[in-house]
Amino acid sequence: MTTKFLLEESRMPRHWYNIVADLPVPPAPPLHPGTKQPVAPADLEPLFTRSLIEQEMATEREIEIPEPIREVFRLWRPAPLIRARRLEQALQTPAKIFFKYEGVSPAGSHKPNSAVPQAWYNAQAGIRKLSTETGAGQWGSSLAFAGSLFGLEVKVFQVRVSYDQKPYRRALMETYGATCIPSPSPETAAGRAVLAEHPQHPGSLGLAISEAVEVAATNDDTKYALGSVLNHVLLHQTIIGQEAMLQMEMADADPDIVIACTGGGSNFAGLAFPYVGQTLRGGRKRRIVAVEPAACPSLTRGKFAYDFGDTAHLTPLTKMHTLGSTFTPPGFHAGGLRYHGMAPLVSHLKELGLIEAQAHTQNDCFAAAVLFARCEGIVPAPEASHAIQGAVAEALRCKAEGKAETILFGLSGHGHFDMAAYTNYLGGKLVDASYDEAELAMALSGLPSIPA
Amino acid sequence: MTTKFLLEESRMPRHWYNIVADLPVPPAPPLHPGTKQPVAPADLEPLFTRSLIEQEMATEREIEIPEPIREVFRLWRPAPLIRARRLEQALQTPAKIFFKYEGVSPAGSHKPNSAVPQAWYNAQAGIRKLSTETGAGQWGSSLAFAGSLFGLEVKVFQVRVSYDQKPYRRALMETYGATCIPSPSPETAAGRAVLAEHPQHPGSLGLAISEAVEVAATNDDTKYALGSVLNHVLLHQTIIGQEAMLQMEMADADPDIVIACTGGGSNFAGLAFPYVGQTLRGGRKRRIVAVEPAACPSLTRGKFAYDFGDTAHLTPLTKMHTLGSTFTPPGFHAGGLRYHGMAPLVSHLKELGLIEAQAHTQNDCFAAAVLFARCEGIVPAPEASHAIQGAVAEALRCKAEGKAETILFGLSGHGHFDMAAYTNYLGGKLVDASYDEAELAMALSGLPSIPA
Repeated sequence: MTTKFLLEESRMPRHWYNIVADLPVPPAPPLHPGTKQPVAPADLEPLFTRSLIEQEMATEREIEIPEPIREVFRLWRPAPLIRARRLEQALQTPAKIFFKYEGVSPAGSHKPNSAVPQAWYNAQAGIRKLSTETGAGQWGSSLAFAGSLFGLEVKVFQVRVSYDQKPYRRALMETYGATCIPSPSPETAAGRAVLAEHPQHPGSLGLAISEAVEVAATNDDTKYALGSVLNHVLLHQTIIGQEAMLQMEMADADPDIVIACTGGGSNFAGLAFPYVGQTLRGGRKRRIVAVEPAACPSLTRGKFAYDFGDTAHLTPLTKMHTLGSTFTPPGFHAGGLRYHGMAPLVSHLKELGLIEAQAHTQNDCFAAAVLFARCEGIVPAPEASHAIQGAVAEALRCKAEGKAETILFGLSGHGHFDMAAYTNYLGGKLVDASYDEAELAMALSGLPSIPA
Repeated sequence: MTTKFLLEESRMPRHWYNIVADLPVPPAPPLHPGTKQPVAPADLEPLFTRSLIEQEMATEREIEIPEPIREVFRLWRPAPLIRARRLEQALQTPAKIFFKYEGVSPAGSHKPNSAVPQAWYNAQAGIRKLSTETGAGQWGSSLAFAGSLFGLEVKVFQVRVSYDQKPYRRALMETYGATCIPSPSPETAAGRAVLAEHPQHPGSLGLAISEAVEVAATNDDTKYALGSVLNHVLLHQTIIGQEAMLQMEMADADPDIVIACTGGGSNFAGLAFPYVGQTLRGGRKRRIVAVEPAACPSLTRGKFAYDFGDTAHLTPLTKMHTLGSTFTPPGFHAGGLRYHGMAPLVSHLKELGLIEAQAHTQNDCFAAAVLFARCEGIVPAPEASHAIQGAVAEALRCKAEGKAETILFGLSGHGHFDMAAYTNYLGGKLVDASYDEAELAMALSGLPSIPA
């Protein structure tokens, strides 16, 4: 009985998959925050290098992965696909459970899949500095790693509460040679404005984005890098699902359900888009399930509307499921899922009925994570625990219904930097933080008005 | 160009390799601490289950790995062998550098290679509880993981200073369901004796061993598990070197030098013994290099003599390179290498001239580790950084001499639980702690006298 399905390096995908080519209806275009007219490529050039802007707006189905990027990927890719036999036994389910594991990357998550190409394209264009933001630190450490490979200076604005509480991720960024600054910071107008009013402000992802964008917009030698949400970031992650499809073939299995956690959307898109695309091109229809935290439920409770990606409203307006750019998610451990919006492409698929969404509570997700750790050995990141909980729920449904369905879920990263969360959970101290309904209503009522 | 050399699961070794079968001179036997006569199997039964005692004393060359153990190994094994091309480029060396990476295991190090068989054999014998000790926590978390798979209760005595300073490893043990107790503890006579004199005693590995051994010796339902030093532990680790040999063949390369870090000796033995054995059976002679910390240099500065493995002198006497059982290594970050003794089999090979030993300072090792992280992505555990420094030194020698030698080193684990050490290093705060010569002389003068 084979447990792991490993692809040879020679079978690592040579193209990224662009789902835009297969969509029956194109997604709504991003709008300029000032004119509220569709963004032109030139509008994005202060922030992004030209090749990434081309990918952001691309409509061809396949985009070649340059060989120097594939060479870096070979440090950890192809990533394993694993049959979770012990979890199946523990649940006594007739379902087959597979997971695609991205925690083998140097930064311990799927984030380097986009950090490496973003750094490489910028280096090719002669850019010497990148600015970015990070919450828990998964994206920041990934871009720091990628920057170190191509000689780029990387400046990371880290949400202050994470900067203070998670010194290990900061240490990882610094080990790779990046500079890490707690946000809000005095380095930007956006940061100074907040600090003037709230000197002890804990920061937020939306605010850190504003700071990183401002640095790139006001420095000619600096471009901005974002770790999720945008089309080109989702594109880069599709290597996950393409590999998984080849590996499921090796396992002589085909998933009935594909499950991934979603915050900004890049991890979910990476695993799910190649499967959705296969369906769109006439292939089999599967259930594709996005799992989000009940405390930050953009897909299940948000509004599908144009909104800003950041709090200072420096970013383009994108049509997405949003809780409102002023919405502050409560403090829970899956920092990578604490974002008010959702990737426009993921939101679009949801509106088209091509994917489902579920929200799960933090304690349920940690219970699933501990069960998984004791069965399969891997201690998952709090973000990834949402996918596990989604898979466990489906496996238990299969058991109740006596159905031997095949479940594939994405395990986006390991939790070795998040062990304090496990201590809290095991000590019974983890609360299911919930957002304030009045605050959500207020945030939603403040969505920008867009002329029809 | 291939970067990773991955074995198919079907090629995972089916036997452990026992170097005792190939030795030209047998190692000195362990002695009973009371009678000072060679230990009989029955003497060990209070501590170990019979099948492990048989392995401890085995003389056959190959010992079959039971299928249920191989099934667990498939969660992460075969472990990758990687060509460190970027490190070669950074060093501008003509040498080829390969490393065998054990950080892909659930606990992030090589330790599960022995924890899983130890837990399985005990479970097979009907044992329900295991006691053990841990320093930084790599062994403790590995045994906790293994215990969770086979339904064993695991009690870990963790050196108090690590228990307080490294809460993440403790959280990992608890996530796997183990109980973790700071040592010295009031649970044992050994612990109480120390606490009575020094209520704030920071603990030591030798003392934690005494506590764990005492619990096993005084409880019928509990056996003891050790993470290094003993023959059967080294035996279990030989899967590393056997896999590496197959993978080096895939890479069409043969190492001129094999390098691994050594504390108790199990990681070193795992990679090196299969190569030494090949030489002993008439194969090619290679340089086999053990790298230890300059601050705890048992192989390079210790005496080859009979000594105790613990401070309370409950263990058998074994002939080994030792700094004296009362020697307290200074505080440095490679907690897994802070042990006064060395595995008897590794010591024996050193005396026979079959292996070399080098000692390197902490700052040199961290410098090599940071260079490695920025080239290859993986942030190594402080223990593993010693092997990297050994490899870097040899690669630079090759450069100076214009020799294109092939270097293989063992990367025993990742450093994601040790990031505070990197923060110290990058902040210039890491001192090259050195031991007190007078204390070493005192500890060596106190070695037990053994009748000839």
